[in-house]
Amino acid sequence: MAAVSLSVSTVKPLGDRIFIKVSASDEKTAGGILLPDTAQEKPQVGEVVQVGPGKHNDDGTRQTPEVSIGDKVLYSKYAGTDIKLGGDEFVLLSEKDILAVVS
Amino acid sequence: MAAVSLSVSTVKPLGDRIFIKVSASDEKTAGGILLPDTAQEKPQVGEVVQVGPGKHNDDGTRQTPEVSIGDKVLYSKYAGTDIKLGGDEFVLLSEKDILAVVS
Amino acid sequence: MAAVSLSVSTVKPLGDRIFIKVSASDEKTAGGILLPDTAQEKPQVGEVVQVGPGKHNDDGTRQTPEVSIGDKVLYSKYAGTDIKLGGDEFVLLSEKDILAVVS
Amino acid sequence: MAAVSLSVSTVKPLGDRIFIKVSASDEKTAGGILLPDTAQEKPQVGEVVQVGPGKHNDDGTRQTPEVSIGDKVLYSKYAGTDIKLGGDEFVLLSEKDILAVVS
Amino acid sequence: MAAVSLSVSTVKPLGDRIFIKVSASDEKTAGGILLPDTAQEKPQVGEVVQVGPGKHNDDGTRQTPEVSIGDKVLYSKYAGTDIKLGGDEFVLLSEKDILAVVS
Amino acid sequence: MAAVSLSVSTVKPLGDRIFIKVSASDEKTAGGILLPDTAQEKPQVGEVVQVGPGKHNDDGTRQTPEVSIGDKVLYSKYAGTDIKLGGDEFVLLSEKDILAVVS
Amino acid sequence: MAAVSLSVSTVKPLGDRIFIKVSASDEKTAGGILLPDTAQEKPQVGEVVQVGPGKHNDDGTRQTPEVSIGDKVLYSKYAGTDIKLGGDEFVLLSEKDILAVVS
Repeated sequence: MAAVSLSVSTVKPLGDRIFIKVSASDEKTAGGILLPDTAQEKPQVGEVVQVGPGKHNDDGTRQTPEVSIGDKVLYSKYAGTDIKLGGDEFVLLSEKDILAVVS
Repeated sequence: MAAVSLSVSTVKPLGDRIFIKVSASDEKTAGGILLPDTAQEKPQVGEVVQVGPGKHNDDGTRQTPEVSIGDKVLYSKYAGTDIKLGGDEFVLLSEKDILAVVS
Repeated sequence: MAAVSLSVSTVKPLGDRIFIKVSASDEKTAGGILLPDTAQEKPQVGEVVQVGPGKHNDDGTRQTPEVSIGDKVLYSKYAGTDIKLGGDEFVLLSEKDILAVVS
Repeated sequence: MAAVSLSVSTVKPLGDRIFIKVSASDEKTAGGILLPDTAQEKPQVGEVVQVGPGKHNDDGTRQTPEVSIGDKVLYSKYAGTDIKLGGDEFVLLSEKDILAVVS
Repeated sequence: MAAVSLSVSTVKPLGDRIFIKVSASDEKTAGGILLPDTAQEKPQVGEVVQVGPGKHNDDGTRQTPEVSIGDKVLYSKYAGTDIKLGGDEFVLLSEKDILAVVS
Repeated sequence: MAAVSLSVSTVKPLGDRIFIKVSASDEKTAGGILLPDTAQEKPQVGEVVQVGPGKHNDDGTRQTPEVSIGDKVLYSKYAGTDIKLGGDEFVLLSEKDILAVVS
Repeated sequence: MAAVSLSVSTVKPLGDRIFIKVSASDEKTAGGILLPDTAQEKPQVGEVVQVGPGKHNDDGTRQTPEVSIGDKVLYSKYAGTDIKLGGDEFVLLSEKDILAVVS
């Protein structure tokens, strides 16, 4: 069986998962730019490209995600699963690992 | 007692478990193809071949699985239980360990 | 006090526990036969010989077990408690540790 | 203050605890007799001598225990608290640590 | 600030906590006397001297404690907090760490 | 930015937190005085100086704290966060870490 | 892709997260000033600059945060994620990691 061809539009996250395109970091820029304290604590910025249907509540309903496609978000660098599509880096993580919308 | 003869159609997953045929990996192909970052973080692609009845809710109802037979899915390589049937590789895992539908 | 005489019919599992007779493994057979990948991940096949009344729900009702006496089941080799009766091997485990019905 | 005189009839287990008299093991007997696989996994047989009022449900009601005084039970050798009264061995454990009724 | 003067009557346990006076152990006495198996597993006998108002239920009501002042109780030697008042030893522990009433 | 000036009256604990002034220990006094067994197990006495609004219940209501300003309390020496204001020692801890009211 | 330009006003915390500007510490000042006991236990003072919409309750409603923009708060130095914007230090943490409002 050949490998499945993946593109951003064919990836449908399950449950509360969010699919994020990782933004290139540019830590030398001054003036209102994210300058993480140390590499170990470094939060990561990315753009939401796909959103899952939301977390299942106990009564069968779902909790609508707080983020939408196109949002710039801040998330912990060590959460979720890294994926590469072509030359770009992506991450699939749970919405609870997103710290803030920054756009 | 002789070993039980197993085939895909005779495996009925319990609860929220999903039975997946592991797709061969082809990491050299370019153009929209999954290129995992490192072996350690490598997500795995497979095809759903059997679906359990779904997770039991506290009130006795079940939560319908989000995936169906035939779906291509992305899952963590280290989740679930590996099984071989004939020459093919399969994995039995909980639906929560499936990251996304990719077909 | 003498030891209690045990036979399959006198063992009544409590709660969600299932009593399973372990099937002999025959890993050399080809054609639709279970061929576990490695000893460490090896799932085990057995036959259900006794079924507990089911897990207690919070409201005092019980969750009916998904398996019945006579079912061939796949379970994790490292779940539950091993028991020998005469020359046969058995295992007492929680229903949640049964992966699939395979008959 | 002198030690409290204890006898089986004066021990009233709290909550879901069960008071069990440990049965002597006789591992050499054949024919339907419990022959644990290894010492490490060895389940233990005993007789229920006192039963607590049952586990508290969240709504203040209690969950009636599944075992009664006089039941022969199989339990994990490493659960609960060992107690000696006179020359006999007893164990006080939670009902959830009882695997099966075997009489 | 000087140390607070404590006496049994001025100690009001919070929540599900129970205040217990530790009974002297007398492990040499025969005939219905507690003879713990080993020091490591040794249960402890004591007398309830103060009882908290009970555990808070999720709906704001309280779960009435199962023990009363004056009860002789069996508890795990390693639960709770040891306290000395004058020359006597006491322990403050959660009701769930009391195994049985023994008087 | 200069450091915030803190005084007891300006510290408003959040949720179920309690603000306690640590009492000086005086372990040599006899007669009804707290004499902890060992340094490792030593409970600590203090006086409640501020009380949070109480723990949030799941339905949005709050659970009224069991302690009030002025109460002398016994708490575990290793719970909470130590704070110094001027020359005095304080501790901010969750109400569940308070063992008993002792005044 | 260039790095996202971040400023305090464009950071919208998700869920129960709070965005805090870290106050400079000035541990030498006397008179009602925070003097942490040791570096290891040192609580940190900061000012709330952004507040998330609040924690999701199980029924889909939200729990209104207890803090507001402008509040001076005391929080554990080791909670949350450190962020630098220009020359200032900030921290993004869950409301439950805020110990008290101190202004």
